[in-house]
Amino acid sequence: MSLSDDFHVFDTTLRDGAQREGINLTVADKLTIARHLDDFGVGFIEGGWPGANPRDTEFFARAATELELRHAQLVAFGATRRAGGDAATDAQLAALLASGAPVVTLVAKSHDRHVELALRTTLDENLAMVADSVRFLRAQGRRVFIDCEHFFDGYKANRDYALAVVRTAHEAGADVVVLCDTNGGMLPAGVNAIVADVLAQTGARLGIHAQDDTGCAVANTLAAVDAGATHVQCTANGYGERVGNANLFPVAAALELKYDRRVLPEGCLPEMTRISHAIAEVVNLTPSTHQPYVGVSAFAHKAGLHASAIKVDPDLYQHTEPALVGNRMRMLVSDMAGRASVELKAKELGYDLSGDRDAVGRIVARVKARENLGYTYEAADASFELLLRDEVSGTRARFFALESWRTIGEQRADGGQANEATVKVVARGERIISTGEGNGPVNALDMALRAALERFYPQLAELELVDYKVRILEGEHGTTSQTRVLITTSNGKDEWSTVGVAQNVISASWEALEDAFTFGLLRSGLEPGLEP
Amino acid sequence: MSLSDDFHVFDTTLRDGAQREGINLTVADKLTIARHLDDFGVGFIEGGWPGANPRDTEFFARAATELELRHAQLVAFGATRRAGGDAATDAQLAALLASGAPVVTLVAKSHDRHVELALRTTLDENLAMVADSVRFLRAQGRRVFIDCEHFFDGYKANRDYALAVVRTAHEAGADVVVLCDTNGGMLPAGVNAIVADVLAQTGARLGIHAQDDTGCAVANTLAAVDAGATHVQCTANGYGERVGNANLFPVAAALELKYDRRVLPEGCLPEMTRISHAIAEVVNLTPSTHQPYVGVSAFAHKAGLHASAIKVDPDLYQHTEPALVGNRMRMLVSDMAGRASVELKAKELGYDLSGDRDAVGRIVARVKARENLGYTYEAADASFELLLRDEVSGTRARFFALESWRTIGEQRADGGQANEATVKVVARGERIISTGEGNGPVNALDMALRAALERFYPQLAELELVDYKVRILEGEHGTTSQTRVLITTSNGKDEWSTVGVAQNVISASWEALEDAFTFGLLRSGLEPGLEP
Repeated sequence: MSLSDDFHVFDTTLRDGAQREGINLTVADKLTIARHLDDFGVGFIEGGWPGANPRDTEFFARAATELELRHAQLVAFGATRRAGGDAATDAQLAALLASGAPVVTLVAKSHDRHVELALRTTLDENLAMVADSVRFLRAQGRRVFIDCEHFFDGYKANRDYALAVVRTAHEAGADVVVLCDTNGGMLPAGVNAIVADVLAQTGARLGIHAQDDTGCAVANTLAAVDAGATHVQCTANGYGERVGNANLFPVAAALELKYDRRVLPEGCLPEMTRISHAIAEVVNLTPSTHQPYVGVSAFAHKAGLHASAIKVDPDLYQHTEPALVGNRMRMLVSDMAGRASVELKAKELGYDLSGDRDAVGRIVARVKARENLGYTYEAADASFELLLRDEVSGTRARFFALESWRTIGEQRADGGQANEATVKVVARGERIISTGEGNGPVNALDMALRAALERFYPQLAELELVDYKVRILEGEHGTTSQTRVLITTSNGKDEWSTVGVAQNVISASWEALEDAFTFGLLRSGLEPGLEP
Repeated sequence: MSLSDDFHVFDTTLRDGAQREGINLTVADKLTIARHLDDFGVGFIEGGWPGANPRDTEFFARAATELELRHAQLVAFGATRRAGGDAATDAQLAALLASGAPVVTLVAKSHDRHVELALRTTLDENLAMVADSVRFLRAQGRRVFIDCEHFFDGYKANRDYALAVVRTAHEAGADVVVLCDTNGGMLPAGVNAIVADVLAQTGARLGIHAQDDTGCAVANTLAAVDAGATHVQCTANGYGERVGNANLFPVAAALELKYDRRVLPEGCLPEMTRISHAIAEVVNLTPSTHQPYVGVSAFAHKAGLHASAIKVDPDLYQHTEPALVGNRMRMLVSDMAGRASVELKAKELGYDLSGDRDAVGRIVARVKARENLGYTYEAADASFELLLRDEVSGTRARFFALESWRTIGEQRADGGQANEATVKVVARGERIISTGEGNGPVNALDMALRAALERFYPQLAELELVDYKVRILEGEHGTTSQTRVLITTSNGKDEWSTVGVAQNVISASWEALEDAFTFGLLRSGLEPGLEP
């Protein structure tokens, strides 16, 4: 499917996004991210600076044979020719051509102080560098975009010169002149006014590149579009230098859903949540739970007030339909919640409680009482589902019953360590005593319990503890502190979270572990026996 | 210091911020956060909804005696009277009065559909509810702000009715009418136009409450200010329902630094970074590394290109001076920044290292190596000071040496619990074996160690463990996860934090405990002997 050229969604995750502290991309990572971005439907993927480092050079070489892009064109990034040099013999421009990319973005100085202090050349020579470099690449059949670095600061310092750079690039044949807020200090009203003025003064096609240092990069990007910019530079999940860049996902969603402007190919927007998370995995960062549109919390409702209205009509409390961006609504159960959110959560879990006012009342009361003790159900879906099941069925789902446990931890004089746990449990009418070892007391308990139960429930072998969090509640003078443990368990396909609260971290862990195993066995399709 | 009433910075972290998924505040947490917000200099702190849940009721009761606010006024949140009821006998309004808060924010419906579908009353009765409730609270001497829920959606659906709600609240005596983008779907241009129209039509003093669902909450807040709003509702670190609320810190920084408008008391803005991180610790969320202004990466430069320009003039690559918001520039490629900050930190702690390049190099290298293992010295000043001392003096400060420890935890068949720890340590040349009991394994270890050492160091009796946090650090693919323990210890006057990292939570706790005791004994003026 071919995209209209009237509006560009230009992604620079692979160049500017890679400048984020903590991101270090291999060539394979870059190829994988490029495929995700192409699936999302961006028009341009800036791959890096060929010639500036071996990794980026290799990326373009491999992309030529390994990348099959359906929607996007690959872009090479570089700088204008050297001061005092000749475009035709400039090694750096030659590397851009050698990359094979059909489109080149050249960074150019547009702030007079930067020309003089950082580039150490004259204002006129800088204009000549822009004109020569654009003409040279155009003559070689490349499409050229110009990134005007520090444009907004430059415009404020010397408007005439900043405008002269835009005109020079435009007249030399650059398709788009991108106004960059390199230091990220702009706010939307200022961006809007300056973009409008530049457009009126130069008639050039304009783009916007916004950094997020004021927390306004998305809004600054939209403010530029409002003023007539038709090319937006963004990065996936807003990755980038310092605070980051304009986040591709809320920008694309705003244009599609709020401006009602088609900037992605048909059918791509609902892939947004999946692609955002997939790219986070590639760069090895946890997906932000609170990212607009795509975060797991983006359509999660906690306040009881909201839940009662959502029962009437979900659109009363959501600004857009989550499915449009591939996300979904979630109800969180907490002591702020009332009957309505319990009913909705139950429905989400497959229990229709609309006719059972008593059960809803019992569940709300029990959640409030337990949260007052330190439990938290919004972060422990599986423990909540067990509680709900108990109240609906009137009995606790049990596959085993604890008689006692004991843990021993040792730091020996020779520096060695040992952790051992013994559990005594009853399952299917049988009493089992079992001992496990681990790298800590909770791990040892986990091992002991698995050893005790594996004969009866071989399904437990699939379960893996994938996250474990501890929080001490109310650590002030005089009061006894409680320990809250949250455990996340996986069966390889799904994950669920359980909670335990006790004074003692091991008791709290045991409780969360017991819920985790019980839930896992229910999930595997087993019915709890009546015994023990 | 008293703040001008012309512009309000209104914080709702304790109410709306608490709606964030994963946040669950105790009353003690809320009191601590209120103190931080007051230190930051906000004008109003919305504490919660007294009467709606026991925790918020208790918060106001304890705040009355325990909170001494220097800048802020405490605000109670509630709703207008019941439909068909009487303000004077409304239980919920009575609870607002009983809270003792001098200011009340009332949420009111301003979207016709919400009145009919969610509130299930008539449009006229809703206006009467607003007028009656405001007049009643004003007659009781309270200052009243009105939150018009879903204002922007309501304005788009039925402008006349939305304006009627604003007029009704204003005429009944509400000081500020706050326009809320409850579903968070607005963009700045729309906010600006609507706020300007409402101001022109009603003349009411207007406020703005923006949710971040489009990623534009900060920009929407500023767009409302541009249109004449003089009251901004924000939350610390942008915590809030779904994606979150307008983030207090970039809003305050933009107003102070970009608008050149004094909205905080003198001297408060440089506390911003510290306060942002401290509040994150209280709610037990990792401070966002990429938060505008206050993130550890907010002024971190990675591109080698920037280094030479920054040497010429730092302002070439930063939009504001980091010290103005209590942050600092970091160069990620060179260890010069590391050396400089170690030198500065050492100076702060009373060690002049300016003449000792070798010691600084050793300390930087050790901090980097240890942070790579999972230690964090930013949150563990005392452990850092011990490390620094070691490297400067060449020997580890030791008051005792561990030979071994063992912990036993038991959940007995009769439901009883026991936790016991035995330590074998050497102090002043003597070997001591001592056993302690506790409510958990770490508490038992603490007790055993105190029992072992009290004869030699009676000062230990003063030390109290006041906070204990555990975090599991994810290993990279294939590696084993590490457990990080942070302990805060108090001697009744000062507090200090120490860190331990190990696979095993008890080993990590021991390490943090050992540092905590060693630091406490140094702080009490003891010199560590050469022994053992």
